[in-house]
Amino acid sequence: MEPSKDQIAQWFKKLQDNICRGLEKADGAGEFEQDLWERPHGGGGRTRTIKNGRILEKGGVNFSAVHGPTPDNILNALQLQPADFFATGVSIVLHPHSPKVPIIHMNVRYFEMTSGAWWFGGGIDLTPHYIDKQDAQSFHSQLKQVCDQFHASYYLEFKQWADDYFYLKHREETRGVGGIFFDRLTDQQGFSKKQRWEFVQAVGSAFVPIYNKLMLKNHQLPYGEAEKEWQMIRRGRYVEFNLVWDKGTKFGLDTGGRTESILMSLPPQAHWEYDHRPAEDTEEYQTLRGLKKGINWVDGADY
Amino acid sequence: MEPSKDQIAQWFKKLQDNICRGLEKADGAGEFEQDLWERPHGGGGRTRTIKNGRILEKGGVNFSAVHGPTPDNILNALQLQPADFFATGVSIVLHPHSPKVPIIHMNVRYFEMTSGAWWFGGGIDLTPHYIDKQDAQSFHSQLKQVCDQFHASYYLEFKQWADDYFYLKHREETRGVGGIFFDRLTDQQGFSKKQRWEFVQAVGSAFVPIYNKLMLKNHQLPYGEAEKEWQMIRRGRYVEFNLVWDKGTKFGLDTGGRTESILMSLPPQAHWEYDHRPAEDTEEYQTLRGLKKGINWVDGADY
Repeated sequence: MEPSKDQIAQWFKKLQDNICRGLEKADGAGEFEQDLWERPHGGGGRTRTIKNGRILEKGGVNFSAVHGPTPDNILNALQLQPADFFATGVSIVLHPHSPKVPIIHMNVRYFEMTSGAWWFGGGIDLTPHYIDKQDAQSFHSQLKQVCDQFHASYYLEFKQWADDYFYLKHREETRGVGGIFFDRLTDQQGFSKKQRWEFVQAVGSAFVPIYNKLMLKNHQLPYGEAEKEWQMIRRGRYVEFNLVWDKGTKFGLDTGGRTESILMSLPPQAHWEYDHRPAEDTEEYQTLRGLKKGINWVDGADY
Repeated sequence: MEPSKDQIAQWFKKLQDNICRGLEKADGAGEFEQDLWERPHGGGGRTRTIKNGRILEKGGVNFSAVHGPTPDNILNALQLQPADFFATGVSIVLHPHSPKVPIIHMNVRYFEMTSGAWWFGGGIDLTPHYIDKQDAQSFHSQLKQVCDQFHASYYLEFKQWADDYFYLKHREETRGVGGIFFDRLTDQQGFSKKQRWEFVQAVGSAFVPIYNKLMLKNHQLPYGEAEKEWQMIRRGRYVEFNLVWDKGTKFGLDTGGRTESILMSLPPQAHWEYDHRPAEDTEEYQTLRGLKKGINWVDGADY
């Protein structure tokens, strides 16, 4: 049976519940606070944010389901005929206290038009302040396992898509070690809507085990002032990506999306320093070397 | 006599020298450091940055003069025929330590094509962390005086242009108390090139007296932790404007401009907090009330 838009939205709502519960359990102290909001032209959402937990410093796990006449700029951008739209999804960004715990982002979403068009999109990507090759390998292996259940080409295709999407052209660096990204997955190329939906569900369900492992493994590692300062610089780059290059953010801000829900992705603090460059023999320098497209993280990241 | 492109670039270079000298004198401790850079396709610049002065925490006063074949995306954006371009200008952003001293931005620039088209652009705008109505009145009055020397319509026209340009649509607030902004000033509407150039020179020359007065008047005012935290939130909005809405920044990053020179405009630190709202009876709240288009600062800012 093909999933209906209401079934998809209901499942995303439960996903938000499960993810918040799972993260609170791993954090051990922080609790999500909820803001309910309504969209003037139809629909609304549940924005859930956390701050000053034990491991998580700032973040959000947002659900929304919005609908109404499709704004003209969306019609133009996506080359669609005028019709009503429906969009639902879960979107997550988490900034940990420790520079040894990576920032993570996850998004799963569904879009449909009354004219009949529909598609799924989403992705997960990891932004370590310090790259740990083993963590990166484990992260990508877990994503590959999810992808491999659905099609042999998914992981490589969506991994490359993430490399291209999460890229700061003006810095010539990737946002982090990438992950998977996909958009406008529809029932072409032999896939049914049911198959696409099951894949998106599997991505959403993979989030808590993937990130809880990274949090619990790394949050007790020691760090000092220098590592904290580097974290602030890397958070600055995260801001640059989200505000300059992230199509979702720009699109949301431009089409009158709920600003506070969209910008929950920004870190609690960020620093900028003119022409900051780590010395060549440092861990910071090694991390920069790993912020490149096309690295094969699963098979040992030889760079 | 009409100014040549070389005369304009030479004058801008001297303006950079004078502004750096004037700011160093007022700051009393900080000194600008210079990076010379060359553009692979022609021309280059002198990026001058300051950090941890007595009054100024971070900032830059940049000169550049670049030329070469006009990139396709510039031709498309400006609807120009293929030709070589020449562009020169001075660009300034200064972030003071004290939340009681406003952030300032100034830019003057000249652009010409071998096909014959040319224009001037520029502006000055002020971003107080706390609006002081008297300072805003004095700032706007000084700009009006400069404008009034050239045309009775300049101030109101360019003040409105600044209100529209320095606007964060997603926050429904202006970046600060505005100032003046102008672009593509050419020899239409009865103005000669010489007249436009003299106006641009007057704007550039007004910068040091305007900002030094604001620095020296305000940097000794007391402030505490709460004011510093508010400054960090306002600096976050400055980042949002520059990375999301500023056409100059986006254009520069998109067309392979020198990233470190463009992003010298970013503050040393910034904070983000989910749904931050100052209480109604506070100075912070009063400041937000003044971040609106169309306020008549010269005649007493009744809001």
